[in-house]
Amino acid sequence: MRPVTESVLKSLDQIDSERSKYVLQTLIKTLHQYIDEVQLTQTEWETAIDFLTRTGHMCQGPRQEFILLSDVLGISMLVDEINHSQNEQQTPSTVFGPFFVAGMPTRMYGENIVEEGGDDLMPLLVQGNILDHDGKPIVGAEIEVWQTADNGMYSGQDSAQPPANLRGKFFSNEQGAYAFKSILPISYQIPSDGTVGELLNYAKRHFWRPAHIHFMIQAPGYQRLVTHLFIQGDEHLNGDAVFGVKERLIVAYETKLADANWTDFFEIKQPFHLIQYSFVLTKEG
Amino acid sequence: MRPVTESVLKSLDQIDSERSKYVLQTLIKTLHQYIDEVQLTQTEWETAIDFLTRTGHMCQGPRQEFILLSDVLGISMLVDEINHSQNEQQTPSTVFGPFFVAGMPTRMYGENIVEEGGDDLMPLLVQGNILDHDGKPIVGAEIEVWQTADNGMYSGQDSAQPPANLRGKFFSNEQGAYAFKSILPISYQIPSDGTVGELLNYAKRHFWRPAHIHFMIQAPGYQRLVTHLFIQGDEHLNGDAVFGVKERLIVAYETKLADANWTDFFEIKQPFHLIQYSFVLTKEG
Repeated sequence: MRPVTESVLKSLDQIDSERSKYVLQTLIKTLHQYIDEVQLTQTEWETAIDFLTRTGHMCQGPRQEFILLSDVLGISMLVDEINHSQNEQQTPSTVFGPFFVAGMPTRMYGENIVEEGGDDLMPLLVQGNILDHDGKPIVGAEIEVWQTADNGMYSGQDSAQPPANLRGKFFSNEQGAYAFKSILPISYQIPSDGTVGELLNYAKRHFWRPAHIHFMIQAPGYQRLVTHLFIQGDEHLNGDAVFGVKERLIVAYETKLADANWTDFFEIKQPFHLIQYSFVLTKEG
Repeated sequence: MRPVTESVLKSLDQIDSERSKYVLQTLIKTLHQYIDEVQLTQTEWETAIDFLTRTGHMCQGPRQEFILLSDVLGISMLVDEINHSQNEQQTPSTVFGPFFVAGMPTRMYGENIVEEGGDDLMPLLVQGNILDHDGKPIVGAEIEVWQTADNGMYSGQDSAQPPANLRGKFFSNEQGAYAFKSILPISYQIPSDGTVGELLNYAKRHFWRPAHIHFMIQAPGYQRLVTHLFIQGDEHLNGDAVFGVKERLIVAYETKLADANWTDFFEIKQPFHLIQYSFVLTKEG
């Protein structure tokens, strides 16, 4: 180990938290070893400083370029994998992404999350249950939902959309069920006008994410679940720019031509798309 | 190796430059291994995203928080070590630091770099030669100089100082000599109002740098030399916050009471401080 590395490690010895000390000292050891291994040039160091600086400057308002960078480098998925016991029962988790917005309105069972546009599109009904490992319904689970509009943009990216468009917070009902009306998500390209765009272009990578709906589900006593539902048949399922696809999160939709059981209760005009999917949560601890 | 790591490495396979591909793929391998090794938590990941974002936001105008971060983590010194053959003859290099400003005025041999303040302080004369490995003078070498004022601040940090205060560009004369008038630098604390400040406070580290004068010296056919001269006797020489001190860069100053040889030529009132130091450059290649 070089003397400068030893000096830096020693300078971090007084950190109170043993965990933080370990995480930071290991980071220093790792970064110094890496720089030595690749014999990083002064110019490469300058490029890195400039890239990080401009990535920081891109983070304004809802735009979070560092999360996007973490996503396209597979770091977000790796952290997700490490932190979620991937047992057979529970619904797999996937990337959180940079587009979540907190403080969205609470909506009723079956309510439409489309506030603007989409009138000419076939309605989509998403319905299912929140369950524990034994298949028992979890009542009162909080379910945050967000997805892109039919232009491939999230509210927050797109000034034409009201802030809560295609977003909302639901609670599972007395039967542990959730339901909402929407439109089918479409595959879209992640933002390419920042440093992440430069990097992907440099590596000749594409910007596509397969169509998906985001879910964040939490209930007292259960691990929080952050995940997506991907739409079967999407052409980008095998090349997600952020490495988020998992087989068990791919769902098919049916196109229902006439079914009064559904359309009357949910006040849906026919025909409509239907996705049925139940999420399984794992107990905490 | 985890499948997600393999997928990310594969996604970087199309980079044209073999060097860039190697540097980036090794970075991915290293970062993923690190995250796995320390089993990084979701909260720690969020802390890292937030820290990087705020570090980016601190970089405004002359303030470069990412360079400062690289400095206090010993990364700048490590990159410096890797990129400069540390042969016995040449003057050692050290950190560039975040306070260099390009485009400073060209000054004459012996000119004063103090534009504002310092009138009540004993003048300092810095004088020496720019030499090659054989001790032969290098004529016309470009010498950029910058240092703090007596309040411990650089012009650019301090609105009371004119932009070129305690800065300047010199050229070695026909004898390969350089000289400038100034004041003694003092030890100072690096900026603590940003994320670097948070980190150092968290690690109970101090912010002091021992007194020094920055030099960047270049001449056609020679490697650029970025270095400091540190002042012997400074109490912070053993604990530089950015790990920049090297034994051979520590210089003593004399206090001259009366010496017409110096004072007449350089128009210095007596008494004055004198530092004599010659820089040795290494040929390119």
